[in-house]
Amino acid sequence: MKGKFITFEGSEGSGKSTQIMLLAQYLKNKRKKVLVLREPGGVMISEKIRDILLDVDNKKMSDVCEMLLYMAARAQLVEEVIAPALTKGMIVLCDRFLDSTLAYQGYGNGIDLEMIKKIGSFATKHITPDLTFVCDMPARKGLSRIRRVKDRIEQRKLAYHNRVRRGYLDIAKKDLKRVKVLQGDNPKEEIHARVISCVERLLKS
Amino acid sequence: MKGKFITFEGSEGSGKSTQIMLLAQYLKNKRKKVLVLREPGGVMISEKIRDILLDVDNKKMSDVCEMLLYMAARAQLVEEVIAPALTKGMIVLCDRFLDSTLAYQGYGNGIDLEMIKKIGSFATKHITPDLTFVCDMPARKGLSRIRRVKDRIEQRKLAYHNRVRRGYLDIAKKDLKRVKVLQGDNPKEEIHARVISCVERLLKS
Repeated sequence: MKGKFITFEGSEGSGKSTQIMLLAQYLKNKRKKVLVLREPGGVMISEKIRDILLDVDNKKMSDVCEMLLYMAARAQLVEEVIAPALTKGMIVLCDRFLDSTLAYQGYGNGIDLEMIKKIGSFATKHITPDLTFVCDMPARKGLSRIRRVKDRIEQRKLAYHNRVRRGYLDIAKKDLKRVKVLQGDNPKEEIHARVISCVERLLKS
Repeated sequence: MKGKFITFEGSEGSGKSTQIMLLAQYLKNKRKKVLVLREPGGVMISEKIRDILLDVDNKKMSDVCEMLLYMAARAQLVEEVIAPALTKGMIVLCDRFLDSTLAYQGYGNGIDLEMIKKIGSFATKHITPDLTFVCDMPARKGLSRIRRVKDRIEQRKLAYHNRVRRGYLDIAKKDLKRVKVLQGDNPKEEIHARVISCVERLLKS
């Protein structure tokens, strides 16, 4: 794969979407070919899966079904867009990827992490991000920054979101080379500067 | 699990739905508590997944996405209905189950059978049918008996459906105790008599 794959992780309200936009603009200004995607979704079939996943009517969804739906949406996005774009040498920025499933369905819901990794590796054709940013923020503060109706996952209790946050920090601790933790509380320009410095190092490598 | 789990497999047009109805009626006449289900589907969330799977507009669906969606629909059905019904001691008759994914996505699409078994075991909470009937019929003949617009899977080429058929026969050969092959060409009363004899043996065991 000639391209670079950079993912942004963290809870809603942690500022990751802002950082993706700022980075995309920075890279475009430097005449890089950039593709910005979001998960779950990004292509028609995955967006349909997203609708099922986030619909507050689907309260009865089992934890395993939820996990497999995230993986199905991801498999489609990888096959249809991410793998071809990386082969073409593009820089792919993705809002969430496999680490989200580890954090939310693994640490959050208690699904076995090794099983998630095994299915995840299969669903993603073994594509792992070259660089991952985790936007960290206290769960309560992140949730309070959501200005729209909360989706099925966001509606979960604070204890759940605290487990997700601790999960992300654990993932980062175990893979310091790939995963960089950003302090979501800091001014966005300051975070952006840190993001750029990590990305520039990656592009030179 | 106090109940009994009986699945019917085979291509569309092989007569399995007729046999399920006949068996359900037979068991109800004997005052058994029977539950009839279909896959993918059977509960609201799984029916929504079914819509995505079978929609002919979703031509771009990747093989891995397809497999994971079948597993997600199955996980939900197991959690919400099959596991509770078996715990209560009911006889559950299901039109398709994990063997369908082995036949269609494994033998048909070429996805690794061991990976399907691993994910399948996880998605079904390790619940395996006590008895499985495979309604066998030449692929061309089965397809010609479909009297409605064909769905996304049914629209596939004859070579695909031939691989699925051979897959089912291979599955049966490897598990003679659980899987019984029915000759879909035979008169339905004759097939039904064979089904009853196998089911009665299971209920006495």
